[in-house]
Amino acid sequence: MHITILGGGGFLGRKLVARIAAQGGATLTLFDMLPPQVPFAARCLGGDVTDPAALAAAIPPETDIIIHLAAVVSAQAEADYDLGMRVNLQGTLAVIEAARRCARPPRVVFTSSVASFSAAPGAVMAEDARQMPLNSYGAEKAAAELLLQDASRRGMIDAVNLRLPTVIIRPGRPNKAASSFVSAVLREPLLGLHTTLPVAPEFALWVASPRVVVDWLWHAATMDTAPLDTDRGINPPGLTVTVAEMLAALIPAERALVRAEPDASVQAIVGTWPARFIDTRARRLGFAPQVPLPEILAAFREDDLAATRGERGL
Amino acid sequence: MHITILGGGGFLGRKLVARIAAQGGATLTLFDMLPPQVPFAARCLGGDVTDPAALAAAIPPETDIIIHLAAVVSAQAEADYDLGMRVNLQGTLAVIEAARRCARPPRVVFTSSVASFSAAPGAVMAEDARQMPLNSYGAEKAAAELLLQDASRRGMIDAVNLRLPTVIIRPGRPNKAASSFVSAVLREPLLGLHTTLPVAPEFALWVASPRVVVDWLWHAATMDTAPLDTDRGINPPGLTVTVAEMLAALIPAERALVRAEPDASVQAIVGTWPARFIDTRARRLGFAPQVPLPEILAAFREDDLAATRGERGL
Repeated sequence: MHITILGGGGFLGRKLVARIAAQGGATLTLFDMLPPQVPFAARCLGGDVTDPAALAAAIPPETDIIIHLAAVVSAQAEADYDLGMRVNLQGTLAVIEAARRCARPPRVVFTSSVASFSAAPGAVMAEDARQMPLNSYGAEKAAAELLLQDASRRGMIDAVNLRLPTVIIRPGRPNKAASSFVSAVLREPLLGLHTTLPVAPEFALWVASPRVVVDWLWHAATMDTAPLDTDRGINPPGLTVTVAEMLAALIPAERALVRAEPDASVQAIVGTWPARFIDTRARRLGFAPQVPLPEILAAFREDDLAATRGERGL
Repeated sequence: MHITILGGGGFLGRKLVARIAAQGGATLTLFDMLPPQVPFAARCLGGDVTDPAALAAAIPPETDIIIHLAAVVSAQAEADYDLGMRVNLQGTLAVIEAARRCARPPRVVFTSSVASFSAAPGAVMAEDARQMPLNSYGAEKAAAELLLQDASRRGMIDAVNLRLPTVIIRPGRPNKAASSFVSAVLREPLLGLHTTLPVAPEFALWVASPRVVVDWLWHAATMDTAPLDTDRGINPPGLTVTVAEMLAALIPAERALVRAEPDASVQAIVGTWPARFIDTRARRLGFAPQVPLPEILAAFREDDLAATRGERGL
């Protein structure tokens, strides 16, 4: 099985690569801006996702599965419109073009996002809720979904558009995602560091743990897509939590490291993201349910805490 | 007021130009593949809607209103994927780029389509119904809508995405739209010509007359967009009719010219288009209601019958 991971050098990409390598049986190509460095047998390429020649090298004709994680994150796409449009929209169109040249229509797993939706606080999103994004990242993701879905209907590719919740707990450092604080409010105290909270404690979020997201990506890569028919979008079974519930999962000494510091620009983006979804269809399609918060914290301690300490010189 | 009409040489473009010219007070630029020929004072340009230089000439910095009618129609976009993506998606992105260079964010009226939706027969579409297109034309239109809406939210442009019903009665000849038969089944008998009906008489359609569509386009070009807030899509007040009702508007001698000839490829496209929409929001926003079928036939006789006879040498 020939698998290409675009954005293979990122946080989710590296975790997915580790899982696929542990399973064995796959010929792996990893693609990112710089060639990813991984302790597994893989063809590692660097390049721009909008460059047809670079993508043709990353997606050879024998490719069976493309997992497309390469993206400009939400706050960055909001700050730099041209960059977001180029990578998130045109980059995905370039992936469709490269995939059309494969010997057989490849499975394409596309990571769309909760940011492609908007809703009033408290709203519960129906299975067929309209994507009404209120940020450029979400608009680019929703538009790309429509075009991946159409290419699937035409039989050019076989796409699954997985709308990821906010992933917690991201290792490493804060990044340019508007949702960066959602991980930071747990990760930084677990590292013994101070952090700020830009939203109110009652603010609700739709989240997922890295382990479960990797499960979802692999399921999306290998599932029978016939039951999806023409609807290629998946609202997976995320977890609805409030910031207060997240803080309650910390011990008091850790919690004391979190200081309220309302940030209107962060609220303007994440404040429109729905926190509650009906996920019956995704569960029926075999997407794993979420795990509770204490388990998410335990997984971070087990999988990522030491590496994050090392990376940040703590 | 500086107005540019892209696709100004087409059926709706020419009718809109006539209306704007009759009102006076506007400096008009018309753009199409070939320079439109009109009996009005207008700057008439020819070019490709994906060519930045051609668009820059068509959309000078002082432009107040852009009416973007240029498109590859449904059956053609289905037959030629690359052409549809280039014109309907990339062409619209090029319009956004050109509009960003205007002195003030221009109003952009975008003609989206009923083809951007799908539904089971008999379904009534809610105001916030999801766009789930089952043809490439509709997918390209829905994706373009998302990006026009996002550019509006960012203050780059001021878009109104008008999702047009099937327009009847189109003058001239049958075209490559999957919905070409909807006009032909009335127009051809009115010209004394035989025609075929590719769908069943009980097939229901969402239609609009050219006069009302021109009203809508002008309203979309000049309305106060503040009440739209971030939702730039309009499901205008179309008319729901069955093919049998359309045939009943003909006299028996005309009706005898229509022969049933089921066409699976036409049914596969138009059979997924909803025929019923809740349109309370559009009416509240001032979009004119539809007129009944006999009035639509009378308007065709008055506005287009003679010209169509001449054009077709009848």
